Amino acid sequence: MKTLFIHGNFLDAPTPQELRIREDHWLRAENGRIVSLEAAHPDAAALAAAAVRDFGKALLLPPFVDLHLHAPQYNNRGLGLELTLLDWLQQYTFPEESRFASLDYARPVFLALRHELWQVGSLRSVIFASLHTDAALLLMQLLSEAGLAAYVGKVNMDRNSIPELSETTEGSVQETLRFLEGAKAFAPQVRPILTPRFAPSCTPELLRRLGELAAERGLPVQSHLNETPEEVAWVHELFPEAPNYLSVYEHYGLLPQGRTILAHGIYNTPPELALLRKRQVCLVHCPSSNMNIGSGIMAAKKLLRDRYKMGLGSDISGGEDLDLRLLMRDAHKASALQTRLDAATEAPLTTAEVLYLATCAGAQFFNAAPAALPAGIFEPGYSCDLLAINDSALTGLRSYTLAERLARALFQSQYAPVFCRMLGGRELPEPEMELQPGAGESLPDA
Amino acid sequence: MKTLFIHGNFLDAPTPQELRIREDHWLRAENGRIVSLEAAHPDAAALAAAAVRDFGKALLLPPFVDLHLHAPQYNNRGLGLELTLLDWLQQYTFPEESRFASLDYARPVFLALRHELWQVGSLRSVIFASLHTDAALLLMQLLSEAGLAAYVGKVNMDRNSIPELSETTEGSVQETLRFLEGAKAFAPQVRPILTPRFAPSCTPELLRRLGELAAERGLPVQSHLNETPEEVAWVHELFPEAPNYLSVYEHYGLLPQGRTILAHGIYNTPPELALLRKRQVCLVHCPSSNMNIGSGIMAAKKLLRDRYKMGLGSDISGGEDLDLRLLMRDAHKASALQTRLDAATEAPLTTAEVLYLATCAGAQFFNAAPAALPAGIFEPGYSCDLLAINDSALTGLRSYTLAERLARALFQSQYAPVFCRMLGGRELPEPEMELQPGAGESLPDA
Repeated sequence: MKTLFIHGNFLDAPTPQELRIREDHWLRAENGRIVSLEAAHPDAAALAAAAVRDFGKALLLPPFVDLHLHAPQYNNRGLGLELTLLDWLQQYTFPEESRFASLDYARPVFLALRHELWQVGSLRSVIFASLHTDAALLLMQLLSEAGLAAYVGKVNMDRNSIPELSETTEGSVQETLRFLEGAKAFAPQVRPILTPRFAPSCTPELLRRLGELAAERGLPVQSHLNETPEEVAWVHELFPEAPNYLSVYEHYGLLPQGRTILAHGIYNTPPELALLRKRQVCLVHCPSSNMNIGSGIMAAKKLLRDRYKMGLGSDISGGEDLDLRLLMRDAHKASALQTRLDAATEAPLTTAEVLYLATCAGAQFFNAAPAALPAGIFEPGYSCDLLAINDSALTGLRSYTLAERLARALFQSQYAPVFCRMLGGRELPEPEMELQPGAGESLPDA
Repeated sequence: MKTLFIHGNFLDAPTPQELRIREDHWLRAENGRIVSLEAAHPDAAALAAAAVRDFGKALLLPPFVDLHLHAPQYNNRGLGLELTLLDWLQQYTFPEESRFASLDYARPVFLALRHELWQVGSLRSVIFASLHTDAALLLMQLLSEAGLAAYVGKVNMDRNSIPELSETTEGSVQETLRFLEGAKAFAPQVRPILTPRFAPSCTPELLRRLGELAAERGLPVQSHLNETPEEVAWVHELFPEAPNYLSVYEHYGLLPQGRTILAHGIYNTPPELALLRKRQVCLVHCPSSNMNIGSGIMAAKKLLRDRYKMGLGSDISGGEDLDLRLLMRDAHKASALQTRLDAATEAPLTTAEVLYLATCAGAQFFNAAPAALPAGIFEPGYSCDLLAINDSALTGLRSYTLAERLARALFQSQYAPVFCRMLGGRELPEPEMELQPGAGESLPDA
């Protein structure tokens, strides 16, 4: 069936300032692309000849986009949050990540991660795998089979790691080439992204080689930026000739125009802000992680108002949760707190702004890919994507406007589950999640 | 059956520093009171003659205690979080609270609130009702029928409110007397607490009359303290003779020794800290609300280390959620952020500390009631109370220690539901939650 009609309440945020509510509307899609969205009821003949999905009074939102998460940290969510960053990396992050040398270990974890991305409605995501090429390719394969859209990066790190998680410079480059070759099988649904972990974990030579690769092949890049003052100081030590942290990536050709994602960006200097704008870098606001680790509060409200590119990231397991709505909740909280603590922040993030960050803003990174079908809002010419949310547990006691229902569904996600997920006009079925008998065998049978 | 054996993994926090884990233990209770908790298996004859509950490998915790929540704001959770405090009160808080003049409106809301307290495991709570005596008594009745323990206060406010939510001084006193009379029916499970909303909403005369009542009848008191700088400044205007905010309550006899609860306490001055300690006032840390409203960050870590009395409160609808585990999550986040922002905070709250705040610390306020059976930890002589938590969705992929399982179950509550709740050796059945046909009739049938 090429024509699809969808009926329901459509809510989206094409800009941070605009919460667009189209109640009781009809969307028409052809071949997975939105053709129209109107209040008028389609005529009976057109309906009879098409596929029809009537979502009644549910809330229909664009799918969520998680711009930053570490897939191998899935099992560490919620652990070690009271440790200092260094202890946490040593006790939890690195040992867990080492285990992804084994595909037997990786497979059930990635199946569970995939299922949860589907469940919470993060139908697009930008992911750090580990440095293990085969595990990264397995993750791409599993996401692809589930119909989820993603960028996945095999991590590069040739210094400042533990022995079990280290590469030589040449080995890292060669494995990256092998990764890119294997990744071809999953495009365009799931694409590769170059992923130097962050400046301190890569030698200048590795950064240079990766920058050349980005230019030669037109590849996007993801990494980290300005997450804590200690990290910034470390970068200055390691790259004394660089005027600032961001300039390290620039120097090595790792800021491809409009196709770079950098997580955090809390401690940006004015020259870095200018460079972020010039290169159209997309920053990732990770409020849950930033609070857990005590990194600080990103100036999200101000950056958004000043039109920097930015989206949201769960950053598991710095953040403990993949649910983008818990991220929106924390983004609001962090910004409201910032309003108190910082005179330059005149108001907290609004519902429209957090919805924008979680949907339209994140999708723009995907829209920048060559020949991409644009996504992120309900608009003719865009991909026919949606999440349908059942908020009936929140609406039985009183009447609410659709804007109020949206606020409650975003900030109380546990009572308003996603019950249908669509990309390109196709509903994504629940992905398989085989539990390995024997996994967790040292555990009690609760 | 007078003797009860319970088998499982018992985790509690008798002090902020001590996470006590008793794996695979047997608890013995007589008449609802814990007699012993031992690793040794009871002998077969004793088991055969007793009631037995085997929770296998689940996590068993003391029930959660929510020390501060506004019952009439249940329907406002998640709404208006982007507004300033004053606009929020005018647009959302006061209009909703006015509706509780009608028991027909109040009843389904209180049924839903009661169900949710049960569901999330907040088996003890300290509640602000509205100023409406009959609604406050209805709430007490419903909680009592469900076997939940609570303090409930009919709110007093004779100034600085909207006309629909105002009392005369004499009317407020007379309604309080009527409330206290009606409340006798529900003691000791559900008890009354005097509830001047906060200093600005009560005339000196009303405060004086309530203070006299507290002394005459040995009643506990709850109110608010030092939530925002603006509020503190307002109190100074209204009570120019008072040296500080807290001294207003002291002056009018509203700090009964060891039986006072004051929500927030973010901006305490040194003389106030001394008075809080002298009167053994229990402060309530409400991190979700404090972030949402941009009130600031309470110095919870420092106050806890300095042994001030303190527990956790959801403060709906300043906070959007009744789940005490989301409060623990936010308490950790706020304190980790404080570690970055404030050099005086040397480390974030630990898992043991947030568990202590949510259980043992909160229960101490209940333990202070005359002839109360002590509660809050698994210890001989204490009430046989527990929550059983099924965290199997979080443990299938790898093995975790019990301490790690606890951290994950606390910080990812949506994947680790409470499946049994016990007070005094009795399991609390799921409370009735009649949905009113017609409520929400202006709403779509999703």
